[in-house]
Amino acid sequence: MRTVYVNGDYVSEEDAKVSVFDRGFLFADGVYEVTSVLDGKLVDFPGHCARLRRSLGELAMGFPMSDEDLLAIHRRLVVENQIQEGLIYLQVTRGVAERDFLFPPEETPRTVVLFTQAKPLIESASAARGQKVATVEDLRWSRCDIKTVQLLYPSMAKMEAQSRGADDAWLVREGEVTEGSSNNAYIVLEDGTIVTRDLSNVILSGITRRAVLKCARTLQMKVMERAFSVEEALMAVEAFTTSASGFVMPVVEIDGQKIGDGMPGPTAKHLREVYIAEMRKAAI
Amino acid sequence: MRTVYVNGDYVSEEDAKVSVFDRGFLFADGVYEVTSVLDGKLVDFPGHCARLRRSLGELAMGFPMSDEDLLAIHRRLVVENQIQEGLIYLQVTRGVAERDFLFPPEETPRTVVLFTQAKPLIESASAARGQKVATVEDLRWSRCDIKTVQLLYPSMAKMEAQSRGADDAWLVREGEVTEGSSNNAYIVLEDGTIVTRDLSNVILSGITRRAVLKCARTLQMKVMERAFSVEEALMAVEAFTTSASGFVMPVVEIDGQKIGDGMPGPTAKHLREVYIAEMRKAAI
Repeated sequence: MRTVYVNGDYVSEEDAKVSVFDRGFLFADGVYEVTSVLDGKLVDFPGHCARLRRSLGELAMGFPMSDEDLLAIHRRLVVENQIQEGLIYLQVTRGVAERDFLFPPEETPRTVVLFTQAKPLIESASAARGQKVATVEDLRWSRCDIKTVQLLYPSMAKMEAQSRGADDAWLVREGEVTEGSSNNAYIVLEDGTIVTRDLSNVILSGITRRAVLKCARTLQMKVMERAFSVEEALMAVEAFTTSASGFVMPVVEIDGQKIGDGMPGPTAKHLREVYIAEMRKAAI
Repeated sequence: MRTVYVNGDYVSEEDAKVSVFDRGFLFADGVYEVTSVLDGKLVDFPGHCARLRRSLGELAMGFPMSDEDLLAIHRRLVVENQIQEGLIYLQVTRGVAERDFLFPPEETPRTVVLFTQAKPLIESASAARGQKVATVEDLRWSRCDIKTVQLLYPSMAKMEAQSRGADDAWLVREGEVTEGSSNNAYIVLEDGTIVTRDLSNVILSGITRRAVLKCARTLQMKVMERAFSVEEALMAVEAFTTSASGFVMPVVEIDGQKIGDGMPGPTAKHLREVYIAEMRKAAI
């Protein structure tokens, strides 16, 4: 039985509950982070804390807990649930209040929930064979830079992709790929240039994206941050995604068309290895 | 202490809880309805049931409860909480499942929550003096025809409107008004024509909208369902909104500019009276 953190208490997962008046439940008025665990340690924890605070700030949601407070909870959950490899999910909502579109008073206690998911991340069948993606129109709101729990559309898009025989969706706005359902999207051009959408309000600023682009630049790979179309992606020699849980994940097929030779490409494989090695070194 | 319905149980509001693994909490994967109560009876209950089923259908969320089941719960909550006038909120989510963007198996039990809010609806200070609205860019997703709990942006927009001295927001997409934060928006032209946005994926098909338009047509008022710009709204002789909780609510100011003489207009006042009379007759 998993131990879950809910508002200061460590409880069994069956007892992990929030009020039906929680604004996370009624208004999707909450933000989240997912941090990977490797070797029982947290991957890029400061990056996730920094993005959490940015999300909270964009929603005018003051938050009294320090990074150290959050770190202590993450570590205790890692120990109690004996997580060697897996994920820690953190959600903060504006709290419990009588239902009203207006925000409740600022002093309303935030709801804070954390839980773990044990799962192998490094040894991945998906990474070994590469993923198939299907493009789906991006119908999300225009503040995808804020990591809110308004995840219904990405969830619908992933279901749509699966119904078309793919593993995941790439979302497309005005003919150009924004990102995957829960990851950033990349292509590799014939000259080896890595192309990924530039940061703006229509994509999430991935913590893994930042780390992987840093690896790529350190490795003297050429990186361009700009929009790319579905047509350009179909002509790429390689494609991949990055996310906290998938690291660097090769993409071998888009809308039923093979990318390159239909096998995970050398750029994605190399970046995956380097990223994992770097993260294992830096994990805390 | 209010009695709240949660998954078959009638519990005190303090005990009304859902799992942190509920997809309503983690993914905003849920839909809702708000039904008004007048004289202890439900207003346009069949309309709300029909829209609920449409929302569930658009999200591929099977739902085993019948309209009669839902009616019985609504009625019991009205009695237990002694609601003469107020609202009943109903939310259905895809249920509790390990966190995953993919939908859980279809047999996953839905989460069903209902609660009441006692409040005066007919005697309304807002309706007597009219509301001020501020226009705010509409950044919502492109399926606003589905009544999901992804309400963060409407909530933010209403806060923004209040910070600018208004009571509520009118959302604007490409220069044209879509709807209010939780209501449909209308203007009245010099020749008496009532204009409101035509139904599409960018607005909710209001239950009150339908009933009010029917009243207007019965009263031989001219109705046009089409988009209108902020500029056209500022030149209108009247403006108003409709919603299950506000009925017909006069709007007397848009972005600080008076509409007409800055007082609730005759069309809105007349429609409000007729609508309330009709609904009191038909409530069950």
